[in-house]
Amino acid sequence: MEKTKNRLEVCLSPAIYDKHADDQNLVVIVDILRATSSICAAVHNGVKSIIPVATVDEAREMKQRGYMVASERDGYVLDFADFGNSPFNFTPEIVSRKEIVYSTTNGTRCIHKASHSKAVVIGSFLNISSLANWLIEQNAPVLIFCASWKGRFSLEDTVFAGALAERLLNSGKFESICDAVTASVDLWNLAKPDLFGYIQKAAQKDRLASKGLDDCIEYCLTADQTKVIPAFQGDRLIDISDQ
Amino acid sequence: MEKTKNRLEVCLSPAIYDKHADDQNLVVIVDILRATSSICAAVHNGVKSIIPVATVDEAREMKQRGYMVASERDGYVLDFADFGNSPFNFTPEIVSRKEIVYSTTNGTRCIHKASHSKAVVIGSFLNISSLANWLIEQNAPVLIFCASWKGRFSLEDTVFAGALAERLLNSGKFESICDAVTASVDLWNLAKPDLFGYIQKAAQKDRLASKGLDDCIEYCLTADQTKVIPAFQGDRLIDISDQ
Repeated sequence: MEKTKNRLEVCLSPAIYDKHADDQNLVVIVDILRATSSICAAVHNGVKSIIPVATVDEAREMKQRGYMVASERDGYVLDFADFGNSPFNFTPEIVSRKEIVYSTTNGTRCIHKASHSKAVVIGSFLNISSLANWLIEQNAPVLIFCASWKGRFSLEDTVFAGALAERLLNSGKFESICDAVTASVDLWNLAKPDLFGYIQKAAQKDRLASKGLDDCIEYCLTADQTKVIPAFQGDRLIDISDQ
Repeated sequence: MEKTKNRLEVCLSPAIYDKHADDQNLVVIVDILRATSSICAAVHNGVKSIIPVATVDEAREMKQRGYMVASERDGYVLDFADFGNSPFNFTPEIVSRKEIVYSTTNGTRCIHKASHSKAVVIGSFLNISSLANWLIEQNAPVLIFCASWKGRFSLEDTVFAGALAERLLNSGKFESICDAVTASVDLWNLAKPDLFGYIQKAAQKDRLASKGLDDCIEYCLTADQTKVIPAFQGDRLIDISDQ
């Protein structure tokens, strides 16, 4: 008897999340420039765990309690934080074996928003193959959740969603149940021949460039730099790739 | 001195609308399958005015007050209504010089949601050239507002948004300020060589087909069948193309 395929959906903005929410979903959080790329870099570089917090007040309180804190709003490092949101901050020398508190404009809020789900994992080009293989093995519905920019639509998150969706669909174990999957796969196929060139059109690229923060874009678009799969368990992100 | 260009935005779902709302916007409501196509057809066929109402209760009350009522939910004609949401219902014989009350799953709600704006007009492939020219003449920011399906993302509305956005950008009088414009124009250019074929991928096509309501899709994708520009003024939609 043919096995039923699992649902595959893409949510293009946190404002639409409630339409896609389901306790059975494996939710992939996507904030390519830069939160989820940075989380993958930090976990790859040996961070013990990352505690994502949604608000600036929570981040400040955790700093007072002695944690190392990465925190930014609109690309700016918050004054009390140890550093901001560039993946280049999270070097092995700085983060290895540390617990880090992390709060960003968009990405970390989505982690909490999806925390009712069966699993919440972190996706970026850095870990795309490892993550795709893990998702295919789980035999559960998948929702790719684009953090986007302040609730709007984000080109780079959508293109990544398409790249991941294409791999899941190619496994034969998933079926798309929404137009957002179709659109993101089509945009990924447009972008793929020159991903870096295509992402020059993204508004977030201009936001980062205006603050001198665009040095990490090529890094954030480079696939398969790590096998880690950061997952939200309890109150923190830990690597589950070897579980 | 070079004139400042007007903002051009695309809103991909009513759930995101608040992020784009601005009293100065000219808002184009888009619900290609089928509300805004049907409204253009009705106005072209001589309807005096269309009163969009958001709820089923309002539609029922207006029927009791003697109005002709077009009303559907999820593609089904409501039992008290004279007809549903196919553009083929609105023939000159039936609608000419009539006032019609209209309520649909997605499109009519967006009209009210945007009613704070400088203008609210109805867009579809049927009136795309006439509408594009009118928008270019107004010298004001434009928001193309996709009604979508129950707050999710809709392929056919986005592709139309791209077709209209491309015309506005080509006029040289607009500048895109959001990634949704970029994505919708790129999807339109993918779809353009075979629009009917491309829209076969849309979930709404399957929803309509499952109810035998897909006979109007080719009609709804055919450009420039009318010059009318239905606009929301007071509590009703009237043609402003000759104003």
